[in-house]
Amino acid sequence: MIVQEYNRLGDCLADRGINVDDVKERLKEQKLETPSWAYGDGGTRFYVFKQAAAARTVWEKTADAAEVHKYTGITPTVALHIPWDMVDNWEELRNYAEEQGVRIGSINPNVFQEPEYKLGSVTNVNGQIREKATDHMLECVEIMKRTGSKVLSMWLADGTNYPGQGDFRRRKRWMEEAFAKVYGALDDDMVMLIEYKMFEPGFYHTDLADWGMATNLAKRLGPKAKTLVDLGHHALGTNIEHIVAYLIDEGKLGGFHFNNKKYADDDLTSGSINPYELFLIYNELAKAETDPDGGLEIAYMIDQSHNIKPKMQAMIQSVQNLQTAYAKALLVNQRQLEEYQAAGDVVGAEEVLMTAFNTDVTPLLEAVRRELGVPEQPLDAFRKSGYEERVAKERSK
Amino acid sequence: MIVQEYNRLGDCLADRGINVDDVKERLKEQKLETPSWAYGDGGTRFYVFKQAAAARTVWEKTADAAEVHKYTGITPTVALHIPWDMVDNWEELRNYAEEQGVRIGSINPNVFQEPEYKLGSVTNVNGQIREKATDHMLECVEIMKRTGSKVLSMWLADGTNYPGQGDFRRRKRWMEEAFAKVYGALDDDMVMLIEYKMFEPGFYHTDLADWGMATNLAKRLGPKAKTLVDLGHHALGTNIEHIVAYLIDEGKLGGFHFNNKKYADDDLTSGSINPYELFLIYNELAKAETDPDGGLEIAYMIDQSHNIKPKMQAMIQSVQNLQTAYAKALLVNQRQLEEYQAAGDVVGAEEVLMTAFNTDVTPLLEAVRRELGVPEQPLDAFRKSGYEERVAKERSK
Amino acid sequence: MIVQEYNRLGDCLADRGINVDDVKERLKEQKLETPSWAYGDGGTRFYVFKQAAAARTVWEKTADAAEVHKYTGITPTVALHIPWDMVDNWEELRNYAEEQGVRIGSINPNVFQEPEYKLGSVTNVNGQIREKATDHMLECVEIMKRTGSKVLSMWLADGTNYPGQGDFRRRKRWMEEAFAKVYGALDDDMVMLIEYKMFEPGFYHTDLADWGMATNLAKRLGPKAKTLVDLGHHALGTNIEHIVAYLIDEGKLGGFHFNNKKYADDDLTSGSINPYELFLIYNELAKAETDPDGGLEIAYMIDQSHNIKPKMQAMIQSVQNLQTAYAKALLVNQRQLEEYQAAGDVVGAEEVLMTAFNTDVTPLLEAVRRELGVPEQPLDAFRKSGYEERVAKERSK
Amino acid sequence: MIVQEYNRLGDCLADRGINVDDVKERLKEQKLETPSWAYGDGGTRFYVFKQAAAARTVWEKTADAAEVHKYTGITPTVALHIPWDMVDNWEELRNYAEEQGVRIGSINPNVFQEPEYKLGSVTNVNGQIREKATDHMLECVEIMKRTGSKVLSMWLADGTNYPGQGDFRRRKRWMEEAFAKVYGALDDDMVMLIEYKMFEPGFYHTDLADWGMATNLAKRLGPKAKTLVDLGHHALGTNIEHIVAYLIDEGKLGGFHFNNKKYADDDLTSGSINPYELFLIYNELAKAETDPDGGLEIAYMIDQSHNIKPKMQAMIQSVQNLQTAYAKALLVNQRQLEEYQAAGDVVGAEEVLMTAFNTDVTPLLEAVRRELGVPEQPLDAFRKSGYEERVAKERSK
Repeated sequence: MIVQEYNRLGDCLADRGINVDDVKERLKEQKLETPSWAYGDGGTRFYVFKQAAAARTVWEKTADAAEVHKYTGITPTVALHIPWDMVDNWEELRNYAEEQGVRIGSINPNVFQEPEYKLGSVTNVNGQIREKATDHMLECVEIMKRTGSKVLSMWLADGTNYPGQGDFRRRKRWMEEAFAKVYGALDDDMVMLIEYKMFEPGFYHTDLADWGMATNLAKRLGPKAKTLVDLGHHALGTNIEHIVAYLIDEGKLGGFHFNNKKYADDDLTSGSINPYELFLIYNELAKAETDPDGGLEIAYMIDQSHNIKPKMQAMIQSVQNLQTAYAKALLVNQRQLEEYQAAGDVVGAEEVLMTAFNTDVTPLLEAVRRELGVPEQPLDAFRKSGYEERVAKERSK
Repeated sequence: MIVQEYNRLGDCLADRGINVDDVKERLKEQKLETPSWAYGDGGTRFYVFKQAAAARTVWEKTADAAEVHKYTGITPTVALHIPWDMVDNWEELRNYAEEQGVRIGSINPNVFQEPEYKLGSVTNVNGQIREKATDHMLECVEIMKRTGSKVLSMWLADGTNYPGQGDFRRRKRWMEEAFAKVYGALDDDMVMLIEYKMFEPGFYHTDLADWGMATNLAKRLGPKAKTLVDLGHHALGTNIEHIVAYLIDEGKLGGFHFNNKKYADDDLTSGSINPYELFLIYNELAKAETDPDGGLEIAYMIDQSHNIKPKMQAMIQSVQNLQTAYAKALLVNQRQLEEYQAAGDVVGAEEVLMTAFNTDVTPLLEAVRRELGVPEQPLDAFRKSGYEERVAKERSK
Repeated sequence: MIVQEYNRLGDCLADRGINVDDVKERLKEQKLETPSWAYGDGGTRFYVFKQAAAARTVWEKTADAAEVHKYTGITPTVALHIPWDMVDNWEELRNYAEEQGVRIGSINPNVFQEPEYKLGSVTNVNGQIREKATDHMLECVEIMKRTGSKVLSMWLADGTNYPGQGDFRRRKRWMEEAFAKVYGALDDDMVMLIEYKMFEPGFYHTDLADWGMATNLAKRLGPKAKTLVDLGHHALGTNIEHIVAYLIDEGKLGGFHFNNKKYADDDLTSGSINPYELFLIYNELAKAETDPDGGLEIAYMIDQSHNIKPKMQAMIQSVQNLQTAYAKALLVNQRQLEEYQAAGDVVGAEEVLMTAFNTDVTPLLEAVRRELGVPEQPLDAFRKSGYEERVAKERSK
Repeated sequence: MIVQEYNRLGDCLADRGINVDDVKERLKEQKLETPSWAYGDGGTRFYVFKQAAAARTVWEKTADAAEVHKYTGITPTVALHIPWDMVDNWEELRNYAEEQGVRIGSINPNVFQEPEYKLGSVTNVNGQIREKATDHMLECVEIMKRTGSKVLSMWLADGTNYPGQGDFRRRKRWMEEAFAKVYGALDDDMVMLIEYKMFEPGFYHTDLADWGMATNLAKRLGPKAKTLVDLGHHALGTNIEHIVAYLIDEGKLGGFHFNNKKYADDDLTSGSINPYELFLIYNELAKAETDPDGGLEIAYMIDQSHNIKPKMQAMIQSVQNLQTAYAKALLVNQRQLEEYQAAGDVVGAEEVLMTAFNTDVTPLLEAVRRELGVPEQPLDAFRKSGYEERVAKERSK
């Protein structure tokens, strides 16, 4: 029955010039990294609603990430936040992760949760504090070596709340100096991803405010530095898929932090507010993957904070939404799209995208999951598995 | 010398048809309430930078509010947040406050910091939780009676994060039901101020999202219910002074939460991002104060959260900025403005406002403060007073 | 083959507790009004790209609207803009329209395209101009009587560009006065829809800035006045579906102007930027249609301006997108949604909506269209019909 | 009397470590270019309110610009828009301008007002259209040579309205190709300023959407290409002064288009919505002017469209507001600001800025104007001069 649906979709896609088996293979290659911090408690500045099943340690977070991978088959790595996830013995954590079925992914330095960083970390007017922050970043490079991580994911929370609080240009130069030191410590097969954010926790300015600042810095540093796009970090009205395409063209797109927002950096489930936007972003990626110039090397990561939803359910739901977006993007008839563009047929071109977006990709994703050896409906299966109830009991002790 | 400057300003204003002594008298009547919660530690979801001088209890908060009043002379009341500021003996707190030189101002129920409120307080699908939240609000009315407070300030944090999470209309009806019960418990000389907010902590929708919802509810409840305008709770681009004028015209403007923002609800110092907007808001208020129809009864309150600035300094600075805005608004030649409006002279009308805004009101404010018996430069005087250093030492024990 | 697909969808929906035949019947009842002005040339302040096929007169616009109805089967009325669409003999136009297969829908007064309205129409400080504007609105009520129209659609372009230009409160009172006069002239079976808009063409303030102002005015006027929601007229980040639900609950939702936007009032094709938002709006409508309290009476209208796309294609495409949104909304399992809400299962509730949204409704819409006697794929059929080429030739003469 | 006020201000500033005579000298060096197009009729997409005094030809526009310079003394150049301002004999126009008292300033190619540019100019999929657009830009370089202009001001209106309409990356490459050709035609003492804009007239994407894209292109082209900041072209919430400082630090700030906005690209009078923001921008410029690294070379230009205000009055008012902003910025005690920053005193640092902003600079500006030989109150003098009435009569013939 289900095979029939897959075949029927295949016939239908063949009419559109899409080979469903190729699509399936590409979907099986999709990878998403989940973040350790999304498995523990977190929330808004108003309140943190604690969840009994929330992971309390990096070991529990790793176990949860591995569990998510068991259900989805496409989340083989877990991102760590330092010092939140600090351990004495990295070898032990690395082995533990691998036993659970995942690897350590990106390493995320944290230079915003020490009293000294109140007025900036690597942009602080105080040289000793800048050095402390830089040293922490360098320590994270060491942790990469010990854990086998190849991605240093740099989100700088530095910014100011009031006019006059800091000197924009001096802060910029201090920041560049620190990033250059850290860049110098990277192995040749490592990459530094530079994230940007428009506002928060700085409310008047942030030192890496937009993709332009992040990319300019990445270009100054060299080929191992690239830009990281977090979907929640733009001003309202920004065309994110355009930035994605622009960065691909510049060879500087290094990674994603997937999530969604309605107003600010809301850290909501990917695809929950505007799934069409997510599809359009994946459309740029899917198109670029077949570029003759050579492949993309992009770290696809989820960065969300679930204050209301059960954390693991939200993560599996996000993975499903990201699969759906990518699957639909793979159904875009790029050749036909280009023909309509060449003919100046705006309506025709748009319909190519909408046709792909409106296709129900459920049978396709179920086929992918079968072949990956995971449940056809991961969220449903997980909700019924009893895992949450079990760990809630254990973690309440 | 300073008297000379005041006289010179007086001469200059007389040419514009403004009587400087009348202005001075109105400035001496200006009142601003400061909130207990701004004296204690608070911050962003990323980190709370603790300050040694931060007040730890409602007693210390009251003492700090009283100290601010000693320097400014126009902040005679302090708002309380329940249960943060809960005490066993309200009589004792009331007396303590009065000894310190301030009175208890508005009472603010808190229905967002209990685990039960995760999916709503008075909008919760669970009737027992709605009742608990309503009971807490009713308890706050009791506290008003014990503390002599006349203002119940209702900020409802209820909202949802995802489509489908709640039913808008059922939530609306439950909310109306709860507010009606609380309204019924008010004494005749009490007022319920209904605050609205566009987003946060709910990221997809908030149940009282804008002035329209708050005011519609206030109208349904009756004359004791009015709307509270928090400057940080609007969408970007909203013309707040228009809303203020509209509410005055409807007889429904009940209060303000002053602060400022650059992007979201940043809770920054009043007047720190767009002082001209603050002036334009005060211009509507100053104009309406002389309405023949009768006076305004508005609770002017500051609602800020200072994560970076020393809290009391930030409060005194805010008071100064609000005095400056009001003083400049009082210098607007309303008769001339109306003439230009009548003549369709857009440039002339705008210049009337700009002339008032560009006037240096320092000598005027210094005269006001002298007559109020407070330092001419409150912020400066406070910074030199040693109070912060002293309480920092005491509160670190 | 196609019948098979419909049956298969029916089976699938039956599993979700949805009766596909009921859904089909409701889809056959869907109605959308198209606006005469979208068939003629229009554009941005920078340039108007003239289209050879653009209608030049109200007769041509009516013919185009009728043609769109021939292809879609659900656009039986055409909105008129006065004085753009002024004719000497309304009987003649009415008959012409009916011969073509459509009726005259809403009447839209225009009080923004006369030199006198530079500083306001019904809010002008000059009483003669206010009277002229009011008289024009009254004339539109006369036109309603002659054309059989039952909907007066009031968009007020009044606003100011600079602080001081106008007095908010006096303008408000003049506006209320004018609207009251026009309201008084309505027959009992007529309705006045009051539109609101955040900005443009006034850039500092607009006199009817948001749903709150429009609805407050509608309430003051009486039961024949209701609020009109234009999807492009809100601040970025506004939850429009919440406003829709709120207005339904207040009995004050009177109509829609459908379109889409990315930043401002972009007047783009409905569903082209965020189709999920459109679905969520229709979800509120679909749910309310089955309210036991009684039915909705809503004028569903499209208000778009196509500077780039061929105008009729854009219109048919919009109709298709609005059908798709409504069809998906009808597939929401409301009972199950309510159960999840009752259980506090945020993920489950959201999945109910997403499941409906991700369903491919093509076979369902094709069945609807077959039964309506129109092409199964209206846009495709129209593009191949040769109509555009033919009228382009005629209209270039 | 007035001299006394200047002296008093001087004494007061001396206490703050500011030499008032130095400030006066710098103010006398301030230059602002006014645009020819602001003197002619223009408006919104809804209506253009024609003004009797509006200039109809480039000759009249030049005369008006020269008149503005007579009153302000700091607007010695006028920007031209091609082909709007096309003439047969550039020598004649150049001489005419100089006789009137102004010079030809920047040249602005227009590649958005031809039917061919509907789907893009230099980004059009059609190579012939790209060539036509490029040729027009090259023609503008020729016009620069004939008029003595040294600034080519490139605003690209290219963008799309719908997903799929264009291929972001191919458009990017075509754009880069065209700009490179034009860059190659520049003399060594010419500069190309690259403007960016977030949205409009393209509503889905614009090819040069932000400072990052403009600056990246400028860097690729070489030292003669720089970035132009138009204050109305950013997303809401953007910190523009930060971008200004960033570009100064990169050596890539080439020019400004001054105006103001409340929501979108409203083209309002500079300083009319948020004068504090304008002051903060000038603060970055004033600080950088004394950089030991070497001077700034920035084209300060006004770009506004006055649909409501009389055009020349609006221009003089804008110049006054920009003088005020710069004057206040020059009063910032930069040394003290730096000391507070070094001490981490956020409140102290902010107060340094606010003190400067709140200073009444009227006597200073009057002194500057006296020495420049222009009226002390240019707007007032112009309004009384009778110029508008005279040209209105002439231009109505």
